[in-house]
Amino acid sequence: MKIELLEELREQNPVIFNISNFVTVQDVANGINAIGASPIMSEEVLEAEEMVKMAGAVCLNFGAFTQPQINQIRTVGKLANEFHKPLILDPVAVGAVKFRQETIFGLLSDFHPDIIRGNAGEIAALAELEWNAKGIDAGDGTGDLTEIAVACARKWHCIVMLSGTIDYVTDGQTVVRIENGTPLFQLHVGSGDMVSSIVAAFAAVSADNLFEAAQTGGLVFAATGELVANHLLDEDADHLRPGTFAVELMDMLHNVTVADVEAVAEFD
Amino acid sequence: MKIELLEELREQNPVIFNISNFVTVQDVANGINAIGASPIMSEEVLEAEEMVKMAGAVCLNFGAFTQPQINQIRTVGKLANEFHKPLILDPVAVGAVKFRQETIFGLLSDFHPDIIRGNAGEIAALAELEWNAKGIDAGDGTGDLTEIAVACARKWHCIVMLSGTIDYVTDGQTVVRIENGTPLFQLHVGSGDMVSSIVAAFAAVSADNLFEAAQTGGLVFAATGELVANHLLDEDADHLRPGTFAVELMDMLHNVTVADVEAVAEFD
Amino acid sequence: MKIELLEELREQNPVIFNISNFVTVQDVANGINAIGASPIMSEEVLEAEEMVKMAGAVCLNFGAFTQPQINQIRTVGKLANEFHKPLILDPVAVGAVKFRQETIFGLLSDFHPDIIRGNAGEIAALAELEWNAKGIDAGDGTGDLTEIAVACARKWHCIVMLSGTIDYVTDGQTVVRIENGTPLFQLHVGSGDMVSSIVAAFAAVSADNLFEAAQTGGLVFAATGELVANHLLDEDADHLRPGTFAVELMDMLHNVTVADVEAVAEFD
Repeated sequence: MKIELLEELREQNPVIFNISNFVTVQDVANGINAIGASPIMSEEVLEAEEMVKMAGAVCLNFGAFTQPQINQIRTVGKLANEFHKPLILDPVAVGAVKFRQETIFGLLSDFHPDIIRGNAGEIAALAELEWNAKGIDAGDGTGDLTEIAVACARKWHCIVMLSGTIDYVTDGQTVVRIENGTPLFQLHVGSGDMVSSIVAAFAAVSADNLFEAAQTGGLVFAATGELVANHLLDEDADHLRPGTFAVELMDMLHNVTVADVEAVAEFD
Repeated sequence: MKIELLEELREQNPVIFNISNFVTVQDVANGINAIGASPIMSEEVLEAEEMVKMAGAVCLNFGAFTQPQINQIRTVGKLANEFHKPLILDPVAVGAVKFRQETIFGLLSDFHPDIIRGNAGEIAALAELEWNAKGIDAGDGTGDLTEIAVACARKWHCIVMLSGTIDYVTDGQTVVRIENGTPLFQLHVGSGDMVSSIVAAFAAVSADNLFEAAQTGGLVFAATGELVANHLLDEDADHLRPGTFAVELMDMLHNVTVADVEAVAEFD
Repeated sequence: MKIELLEELREQNPVIFNISNFVTVQDVANGINAIGASPIMSEEVLEAEEMVKMAGAVCLNFGAFTQPQINQIRTVGKLANEFHKPLILDPVAVGAVKFRQETIFGLLSDFHPDIIRGNAGEIAALAELEWNAKGIDAGDGTGDLTEIAVACARKWHCIVMLSGTIDYVTDGQTVVRIENGTPLFQLHVGSGDMVSSIVAAFAAVSADNLFEAAQTGGLVFAATGELVANHLLDEDADHLRPGTFAVELMDMLHNVTVADVEAVAEFD
């Protein structure tokens, strides 16, 4: 874990190119911007190469999953590999929708992601393990989350971050558990998409150690959310407030320091 | 009126599948999530059947109105009928744009909506009655709103909810008038789209009585908005604050109780 | 400068038709609505003529830059000229992406914008002057911003508004410098798109003097942001809070008065 990467990120202000989920795209762009990177989005294949070349990292979000966008995802994934840009993949709803699972298996023979970030249902689907995903939510299952994350990482030869109450980050050998977070993340639809793009921002400034980038990006985001949630519960301990959380999360992503994260960080 | 459906909704957490207005999609997803259902959006026809099957109800929003999306709307509407999923339709701007009116009349020969939710201009256009709609807004007219809502319900053999200062909900025979609400709804662009999808969430847990679902969904949303507005006016009686309203509406959708709604409910 | 146009805008409530950036579309719609105009968005070419005819002004945002949308931009641009509707163009990222620059030069032979609004990197690209744009951001350059704005205005025979710490508005002869603003605009992704559409709203009520519309729209937006920023710094002088800023900007756009703007206005 190398929390100082946060300062590196703010100093370098890398461009992060996102094939984005149309549901959450504004939140994701603002989250990338708030933490100190520079977001760019595009759905046009003719500008894909220029976008990849100017980017420090690329994040492919599968919430955008029409035929033209699948074509765009394939093109951008291959270009990211070709130009050696860290490639992060967020397989939205792949656990609940067979069409997405089949399509993603096709795509993963065309390009290689460096980091896959998803919830339990999504990561289990990519590992081809049993799980009962529900729409965009993780759903329920009895599998061991550590094993699921490791199996996915070994199958696709990449870093995996399985998000939930605890986040599991693994390279297929070592597993880091991040215990920070807040239930408010689940109450705000953009949270998962946002952490994937923020991990991409950390990957852009830690290309030589993407395992560290995934851990740190995950920890900084989880700790930031926890700090916001603590502040909200100080004001009103009886109500979870997802609207206010979304707003203050943007504020805190801009202001959170290495020391703030260190003060609450819980991982092993 | 069966306000306890709110508790049923939160217990069941139904998946609501939305063909969504790209302008307001994030707000709609967060609103569905905040009240206690689970949103899913998709623009890809190849996954339409899976999406409809996993959903407790389907909401078609005509803000998304390109040729591919019209095709998607037709497919999803037919599938919702085939799999007996409650189908809610939000005919955005159909009163102001002849192309939309003509297209929707074609679509309504392909599938049957259970509930139509729109403003006066939109409902009048579907009833083929005179009205002077203005863009996405209701516009002005001299017609009797009760008659317009009833005529639309009888023409399309469905429940109609005509939103405005007063909401009129009718099955073509009985008319329920909901008097809760706030002018702040008109100052926040996503309000109409949000209530349509929230009515869908209530329909998912009241499939045997969709008239009750529409009334209750409408009342809960209107009362929640009014509660937020009252709170904002307590803080500052001289200014309407649409940005803060949007944020606190999300907070309140998550926290509002049956008793809170009952305390302010005004309908007959 | 004619700050009273703000009252005119609120009285007339003109419809503003936007080909919108999918990243920021909800914010832009809400911003137009908050200040007192009526937003409408569409991506469908078959309803383009109806949309243009009902609009008081048209804003083309190049964040939406897929092939179908480029076709839509061309059609709408030509229709706006044909029906003599003020046409505002926001050339997002045209300074950083060669594909966009080439495409826009093609488009600008098909229609004529009345006002171009962009950052230094974008305006320099349209003026074909040297600049080092970075993604969606202005980037760095050594050129004189006044000269760049004037060169762009003369090249395309239109009003140019170059946004930044200082905004430069020019008709190619006179240059007005607006010194209001706040660094928080750069921390919120939708700010640039929002000012373009708000300038369109002012153009709709000042069609006989678009230079005045651009100046006033720019000043009202910059001053409103500054007023919000001042309020936020009063609460907490040590932190920039981009999430809270976005929310309160909507509040203030709805409530700001001519007198409020006059009280802080700095321009020459």
